[in-house]
Amino acid sequence: MSTHADRLTLLRAQLERDKLDGFVIPLTDAHLSEYVGGDAKRLEWLTGFGGSAGSAVVLADTAAIFVDGRYTLQVREQVDGALYAYENVPATSTSAWLGKHAPAGGRIGYDPWLHTRNWVEAARKALGEQRPLVPVNTNPVDKVWADQPAASAAPAVPHDLMFAGQTSAEKRAQLADALNAQNCDTVVLSALDSIAWVFNIRGADVERTPVVLAFALVHADGSADLFIAEDKVDDGLRAHLGDNVWLHPYEGFSTALTALAGKRVMVDPERAVAAIFEALIGVDVVEVRDPCVLPKAIKNATEINGTKTAHHRDGAALSRFICWLASEAPKGTLTELAAADRLEGFRKATNQLKDLSFDTISGSGPNGAVVHYRVSPETNRTLPANSMFLVDSGGQYLDGTTDVTRTVWIGPDAPPAEERDRFTRVLKGHIALARAVFPRGTRGSQLDVLARQHLWAAGVDYAHGTGHGVGSYLGVHEGPQRIATSSGGQPGTEEPLAAGMIVSNEPGYYKTGAYGIRIENLVLVEERTPIGAEGTYLGFDTLTLAPIDRTLVDTSLMGRDELRWFDGYHARVLAEIGPQLDGDARAWLEAACAPLDVHP
Amino acid sequence: MSTHADRLTLLRAQLERDKLDGFVIPLTDAHLSEYVGGDAKRLEWLTGFGGSAGSAVVLADTAAIFVDGRYTLQVREQVDGALYAYENVPATSTSAWLGKHAPAGGRIGYDPWLHTRNWVEAARKALGEQRPLVPVNTNPVDKVWADQPAASAAPAVPHDLMFAGQTSAEKRAQLADALNAQNCDTVVLSALDSIAWVFNIRGADVERTPVVLAFALVHADGSADLFIAEDKVDDGLRAHLGDNVWLHPYEGFSTALTALAGKRVMVDPERAVAAIFEALIGVDVVEVRDPCVLPKAIKNATEINGTKTAHHRDGAALSRFICWLASEAPKGTLTELAAADRLEGFRKATNQLKDLSFDTISGSGPNGAVVHYRVSPETNRTLPANSMFLVDSGGQYLDGTTDVTRTVWIGPDAPPAEERDRFTRVLKGHIALARAVFPRGTRGSQLDVLARQHLWAAGVDYAHGTGHGVGSYLGVHEGPQRIATSSGGQPGTEEPLAAGMIVSNEPGYYKTGAYGIRIENLVLVEERTPIGAEGTYLGFDTLTLAPIDRTLVDTSLMGRDELRWFDGYHARVLAEIGPQLDGDARAWLEAACAPLDVHP
Repeated sequence: MSTHADRLTLLRAQLERDKLDGFVIPLTDAHLSEYVGGDAKRLEWLTGFGGSAGSAVVLADTAAIFVDGRYTLQVREQVDGALYAYENVPATSTSAWLGKHAPAGGRIGYDPWLHTRNWVEAARKALGEQRPLVPVNTNPVDKVWADQPAASAAPAVPHDLMFAGQTSAEKRAQLADALNAQNCDTVVLSALDSIAWVFNIRGADVERTPVVLAFALVHADGSADLFIAEDKVDDGLRAHLGDNVWLHPYEGFSTALTALAGKRVMVDPERAVAAIFEALIGVDVVEVRDPCVLPKAIKNATEINGTKTAHHRDGAALSRFICWLASEAPKGTLTELAAADRLEGFRKATNQLKDLSFDTISGSGPNGAVVHYRVSPETNRTLPANSMFLVDSGGQYLDGTTDVTRTVWIGPDAPPAEERDRFTRVLKGHIALARAVFPRGTRGSQLDVLARQHLWAAGVDYAHGTGHGVGSYLGVHEGPQRIATSSGGQPGTEEPLAAGMIVSNEPGYYKTGAYGIRIENLVLVEERTPIGAEGTYLGFDTLTLAPIDRTLVDTSLMGRDELRWFDGYHARVLAEIGPQLDGDARAWLEAACAPLDVHP
Repeated sequence: MSTHADRLTLLRAQLERDKLDGFVIPLTDAHLSEYVGGDAKRLEWLTGFGGSAGSAVVLADTAAIFVDGRYTLQVREQVDGALYAYENVPATSTSAWLGKHAPAGGRIGYDPWLHTRNWVEAARKALGEQRPLVPVNTNPVDKVWADQPAASAAPAVPHDLMFAGQTSAEKRAQLADALNAQNCDTVVLSALDSIAWVFNIRGADVERTPVVLAFALVHADGSADLFIAEDKVDDGLRAHLGDNVWLHPYEGFSTALTALAGKRVMVDPERAVAAIFEALIGVDVVEVRDPCVLPKAIKNATEINGTKTAHHRDGAALSRFICWLASEAPKGTLTELAAADRLEGFRKATNQLKDLSFDTISGSGPNGAVVHYRVSPETNRTLPANSMFLVDSGGQYLDGTTDVTRTVWIGPDAPPAEERDRFTRVLKGHIALARAVFPRGTRGSQLDVLARQHLWAAGVDYAHGTGHGVGSYLGVHEGPQRIATSSGGQPGTEEPLAAGMIVSNEPGYYKTGAYGIRIENLVLVEERTPIGAEGTYLGFDTLTLAPIDRTLVDTSLMGRDELRWFDGYHARVLAEIGPQLDGDARAWLEAACAPLDVHP
């Protein structure tokens, strides 16, 4: 196996052959996916960086890797500083760095299938006229990556109506209405979750997210062209898609775009790569958000029932795990990796798990304070006595996607006062958000403070958002809504929350080098009509069902309404999860869900 | 006295003489003031509209008046619909309306001293090239307004260092630092409160706000040119301003701007009118926010002590009034106007009142539900038995500006359950905001929900912001900070709150046709350092001291911490205001401030 130094040398030689003085390597695919297939992991192959977001720029005599604050430590462990300068985003950007470091007269290459048009425009501006930014036909990394995996050949399968709740034809009829309302002929769809949603198909081309590699054009008459590798399609899928969906090879997409000349076409500049815009010559382009985004986020009744069933099942698996942990951890030999494996085992034992919804975060003590911790053999830690353990995990089921975090105290002693104080403040924030009622039109940024207020009162905070959207047997991170402060520059915080959306409620607290706390449930936005209400109001119905560690609660900090919520939630957990457990597990759950003992 | 129809006819004849096919009449002055002097009340003279925000456009055969939602009813009462079409802002705008209604080839006039450059650009764009937008030298309204008042000749007076806390020379040295940091020669100041702040001067040119009509240029060496009517300046003021401030006639400002050619000059496009930009020919203009805005908002120790003293005094006056009201209102003859007069009397009796800080809002029953109600002989209402009464008022004192709202129940019966429920929810929001602790950098938009959450829980809300900044013996509305949702498009909600800022805390509830509730205190932003704090945290110190009506509190809705805040606040009111009262008033205050009687 070649070293990363070898690979960098190979790439530089290829750039010379391609008459390029530099090249940009982002971590995404032609669908701007957050998680990508093995063949698209060019950044990891080249540099060794295994995080979920980053880029590299390679010039003839220098190179740099760009990551955000989450990966400041990880990039130094995985990437050789002798080969790549470490750069921080958003302090700098690939385009700003290019503006500063690209040589005079240099030709800088980029793969137009891996960048937004906005990125191309910013980079072109930073480079100026004397240093052309040049699109490549074939990615030079692919030319030198000898053992690059083939694109996934996993089959695409129908997503049954009993889970989807609405036929693809109905969804396409709605898209057609949206097209006609704007006098458009066609919409270009390139986001994989949008395509999976529109056609009611699922696949296994990307880890942890059951999407299918494909592009699509949906037309104003409800018909569609689907660009998908032939070997993914069998007769069953063909029948499922029906007569109104024409199948084409994945590679035919680009040519099909040029055939749209003279038409009026919707494209989402946030979700379509630059190559798509470059192919739309002579097209009247209408730049709007992908019209699947909102209806996909607003779950229908079938999806809502499905997710409740999935959470019912998943909550039992997680409860079994926490029960097992309570007896296993005190032995002093349990590791983070073994715990994560055992949790996956409980989920698999449901016989309905299709995949995890993301790599389990299994963090003991100080590892729990690393917000995006991913346990590896190198970092694997044995759970010691009298320590905090944070586990963030989820499952992909046909009827829904789960995502849940619990933080538990590994005894045998009672937890220290500080840990109880911090845990209780996180819990109070979680409860405040869970109980919130708000008028239609309220955006996630408005609610964020509810989850933080009790931590702030103690002069502490958490450096991540409070909630993200979740798909229906799709991405565990799904837009457009989000609960976070609006200052982070991340999109979604200004999207009004709407009935039917699923969002996470996950405040936390992280003490570097000591412990991490996060309490995460998924919640469903639903209409609420208090007596005397003036207008339409919304609230949250908690979907996730698993006990929250009572031993970490300082009841003296809890208000009456908070105690009522906590005991009420546990009563619900016991009522809905209890019947799925028996024997010791059932007895354990009863104790874990018992009302808090409060002396007023 | 001429009718509004006569005046419109006069203006149209003048427009014809001036070869104009239309003219725009905004409600502001050359300083873009919120409140203006009598000579600038062109809109009111022309149309009869007496609200605080609006514009009119007059064409040869049609005319329209533009007001926002606050004035939808008022404009119909005050302005003749046969003369002016009623238009709503922001549904339309003067520029959009002009684009639609201005005649082909028409020349539309505007006074460049009364509009921002942004407005001019938007209007020019809406009109297009065929319909020129033409600046006038003399406002045509002034030409036909026979009895237009002269500009105020009120003297400018020094604002003593014992109130200002910092000399003008020190303030100008800070501005000079800001200029040098950006390699600028000069800053143009046109906002009246900025000028009053920089030079430590006050006046009486505008009702309710002690500013002086003036323009200023401050230079990078700390010297300044002040453009002010000569008759406002006496030897005392001249001595106060010192050698480094050159005095010029107010009218000389425009010529002085043209003399800046070749210099690098800061101008605030939000605060400087279009005429200022038009005069800066050959100037390197740096567009930034007026550099006085932030230091003016962040009060120094002297101003903070001053405002506390002012609130101490003002709270006693208001408490005397509420005590008087408690004995007077049951007689059944008290009117809103008489109540407002009596309250002003109590403030005057302090012998330190310079002016009210705004026209008192004195609203009984349904009048209390009109958010910007201004009592007049036509609307004046007698306070009936068993009704709600809302009074929003404030005073201008040399040491500070106050603004306070109390809502009281006029007995003799106990208030109905609904009124108590709504009042208690407003109170809970007020308390949540008052108790908030938040990290440095937090913006007002993030805290807004704290004040609304308990109303939302009942499906109700209030259609105004939660808090505005307040000056130090200056404007009762002062930027840049603001507590409100960010969606309203009003500036300020994204300004970080900083220690030393004063802001109002004023949630409310309004039931149209029935009653209004608002509880408003001013609060000071101050640093808070909880034990174990990670970073700098801020909180609010409540400045306003006057009892909140206990009879309207439903204690069953109040949490332990809320009850503690309420009783603690009243204990403070009694301790600080009590010694200023005696006899019956003192006894009344003791009862009004007694701890709530709670049976747990």
